[in-house]
Amino acid sequence: MFKRIALVLFGLLLIVSMSGVCGAATREAGNPKYIFLFVGDGMSHVQINAAQVLRGNNTPGEVALGGLNFTRFPNVGVVTTHDSTSFCPDSASTATSLSSGVKTHSGVIGMEADKTKQTVNIAEQLKAKGMKIGIVSSVTINHATPAAFYAHVPSRNDYYGIAMQMANSGFDYFAGGTVKNATGTAKEPKPDAFEVIKSKGYTVVNTPEGIRSLNASSGKVYAVSPRLQDDGAMPYTIDETPADVTLAEFVQKGIEVLDNENGFFMMAESGKVDWACHANDALSTIVDVLGFEDAIQVAVDFAKQHPDETLILVTGDHETGGMTIGYAATGYKTAFSILNRQKMSYVAFDKRIGEMKAKTPKLTMEDVMPVIEENFGLIMPNDTDAKKEENAPFVLTEFEYKRLADAFAESMKPSDKRTDDEVAALLYGGYDPLSVTLTHIINNKAGIGWTSYAHTGTPVPVFAMGAGSEAFAGSYDNTDVYKKLAAVTGL
Amino acid sequence: MFKRIALVLFGLLLIVSMSGVCGAATREAGNPKYIFLFVGDGMSHVQINAAQVLRGNNTPGEVALGGLNFTRFPNVGVVTTHDSTSFCPDSASTATSLSSGVKTHSGVIGMEADKTKQTVNIAEQLKAKGMKIGIVSSVTINHATPAAFYAHVPSRNDYYGIAMQMANSGFDYFAGGTVKNATGTAKEPKPDAFEVIKSKGYTVVNTPEGIRSLNASSGKVYAVSPRLQDDGAMPYTIDETPADVTLAEFVQKGIEVLDNENGFFMMAESGKVDWACHANDALSTIVDVLGFEDAIQVAVDFAKQHPDETLILVTGDHETGGMTIGYAATGYKTAFSILNRQKMSYVAFDKRIGEMKAKTPKLTMEDVMPVIEENFGLIMPNDTDAKKEENAPFVLTEFEYKRLADAFAESMKPSDKRTDDEVAALLYGGYDPLSVTLTHIINNKAGIGWTSYAHTGTPVPVFAMGAGSEAFAGSYDNTDVYKKLAAVTGL
Repeated sequence: MFKRIALVLFGLLLIVSMSGVCGAATREAGNPKYIFLFVGDGMSHVQINAAQVLRGNNTPGEVALGGLNFTRFPNVGVVTTHDSTSFCPDSASTATSLSSGVKTHSGVIGMEADKTKQTVNIAEQLKAKGMKIGIVSSVTINHATPAAFYAHVPSRNDYYGIAMQMANSGFDYFAGGTVKNATGTAKEPKPDAFEVIKSKGYTVVNTPEGIRSLNASSGKVYAVSPRLQDDGAMPYTIDETPADVTLAEFVQKGIEVLDNENGFFMMAESGKVDWACHANDALSTIVDVLGFEDAIQVAVDFAKQHPDETLILVTGDHETGGMTIGYAATGYKTAFSILNRQKMSYVAFDKRIGEMKAKTPKLTMEDVMPVIEENFGLIMPNDTDAKKEENAPFVLTEFEYKRLADAFAESMKPSDKRTDDEVAALLYGGYDPLSVTLTHIINNKAGIGWTSYAHTGTPVPVFAMGAGSEAFAGSYDNTDVYKKLAAVTGL
Repeated sequence: MFKRIALVLFGLLLIVSMSGVCGAATREAGNPKYIFLFVGDGMSHVQINAAQVLRGNNTPGEVALGGLNFTRFPNVGVVTTHDSTSFCPDSASTATSLSSGVKTHSGVIGMEADKTKQTVNIAEQLKAKGMKIGIVSSVTINHATPAAFYAHVPSRNDYYGIAMQMANSGFDYFAGGTVKNATGTAKEPKPDAFEVIKSKGYTVVNTPEGIRSLNASSGKVYAVSPRLQDDGAMPYTIDETPADVTLAEFVQKGIEVLDNENGFFMMAESGKVDWACHANDALSTIVDVLGFEDAIQVAVDFAKQHPDETLILVTGDHETGGMTIGYAATGYKTAFSILNRQKMSYVAFDKRIGEMKAKTPKLTMEDVMPVIEENFGLIMPNDTDAKKEENAPFVLTEFEYKRLADAFAESMKPSDKRTDDEVAALLYGGYDPLSVTLTHIINNKAGIGWTSYAHTGTPVPVFAMGAGSEAFAGSYDNTDVYKKLAAVTGL
């Protein structure tokens, strides 16, 4: 008798444990308590795979990709990104699709396509359910992608208005870049947004020590990168120094500040993948993807401690630059190791040249060439044979030298005196002609092509692991990312 | 007592039926009987999405993709494509990875990286299990992709050797393009491969009537496209006439020839997506993707009759051309409707110009311009104001006109007298300078960019539906496609 009951119970236990193996019951039982949404701005398949190629093995016969921690997450989606006005959408509309499940116009944040009806976004909904909310970005905190998780404005350019909505969001943790237009614009000056943010109960910290001492009892926090690079953003990962606070550290601190019994939702954006792709700077792109991987690793490590309660999503909002692994002049060959001679981002290089120009207004190619060689490894066609032999992959062809010399001549003109025609637009895309030509040349030599200085219309991947991640497998639209998040969180 | 035994049995039955809900047992219960593997050569995310953009709605405020039948298949994979020698792999090695689960050198078919050890491929294994096998390709039947499913040669260029292995394969249905080098090469002439194929028991048909009368009692068949275009391939879909037999018809006939109680495996390749991408001809690419969709629809319709027994996979072997939806000069705008003014493939256009040249050896731009206008819609900058106003998107800018005039001058030179330098290689990639410049210009105006005339290193999608398709969800390597196929077919 006892044996038989035991057998029945054993059968039932098996059923229960097996149903736990199937997808549906996992979701039902385990709405995720800790949710990480990592958005690589401008990051699609090529940006990700380029990082895997750079990290990989290019030895003939042994070619292999170096994996990233998120590319083998168990569930994968392929996601369409167009917005209601363009197949090459912007970050405002696509982030709104991710945060709120609606298609809207390029440039619109947290509003429907009529530009009047406000959306309700996932962060606001989870906040209302009692979760804590963190918003992290390597670019300014009131830039389009982070803004779509707390603001509702018809134009992404209303930076001050966005900052005010940030101050009023009640969210628990903001971190990364500074506030753009914190005192309004020259035309319309406003009270300092930082003061407003503080008045709403936020502790604002912008020193490494201050940031590193944040913890669960810090209250509402806005942690600002101690060093800002271009337009109020954190430095490119390639330009980071040991003194800088990394994106990974901001995510780590976010976990410490946000962790509580009701759980949290953290959106962390690597925003400068997009900026580097706009500028067609492949190495800065890839190194920022690798920095992003470090930030994702923080969440993966956290998930190991809470495996049944943590959902991690990694996606992009759109592709930027029309980046390709492969280029007409290199055909089937790639040599990404060439990229490693690049020592700094195009932004840091522009700054360096700017400092030289300030000292020597009439710079010549001869003045600049050593700096180019130092930072991009490139060698002039008329250099010594010994040097050319030693640095064969880096010797400029005559065509490349002409491109560079033309670009240098343009770059030395005051920016309002530069050639403003169709060809210049194609060659330089509004960037400094010298640095964009340098990244083009070194990228092309490595076997990387670009077609645009804007966003493109390829789908993006979603990589998902943890509680509820099965819902993110398949082919769907970016608006479905919100819908799936709402479903797995029981909204 | 009886009740207790019944309860135990009920518990056990539940376990069995519930385990059927989980992935593993579904495969156990329902190994697919009918397997379709559709390979779009050179087809990755961008080629597919470009077809969805062309079919879609570009009205501001209502932008939407026009779906393809396979992009919303329930299971989706993201697949890495590098081979053992390159991150920009070729079709021989990638098709070998798909067919046989190994990484090998570019150019190698059905052999491991040592170029001596033969693989055992999925088609051979399923044939040995009693299934019938069909191999369909829009390019020559002994081209790399189809060959990887029946041949084992160290070089894809051994076309005659591949044809002999085809003749000896014992497979049941071959269809599409002709045999390349059917009588060997000029240097090494050989007995007609068609005679060898017939001697092995194959019925060879190459008339529409002959093909359309094939059925289950036709025995072993090789159905050859009645019209051949470039290099023995079927015509581009854009150049098809009602008299042509389409890829969809070859798939339909394949089903009729192959259907039997032991089931079948059919590999169907759309090979000219790759060729059009090599030539940077976007419309020919997209229309071939749409023709591929028609062929896939035949399988989808068949699956409706055998929903529990049919597995359909749609994938690409690699990307070609570095195609992007978005271009530097058009930024965030696309206007794919511009492409519709193109009336024929670059191959058909080259033929047309060749015929004109044969009649008038000293052709001028003035002679050719009406043909350009007729087939690409492009209007000269010095045309009448009325015409330019009416055809505004098609008016060449001065820069575009210069590109075209330079290309025309090059194109009029005998091919061995053309400029052979770095710039010409970038501009024309070895293609006819006139037609490749025309497709570049019309593609760029529509908002499409290209970076290469070769293959690139972006991952490709797998779309899967039907029996066993769950196995194809996730992120994996192209060698895993074979492994998953082997698993779901119980090999």
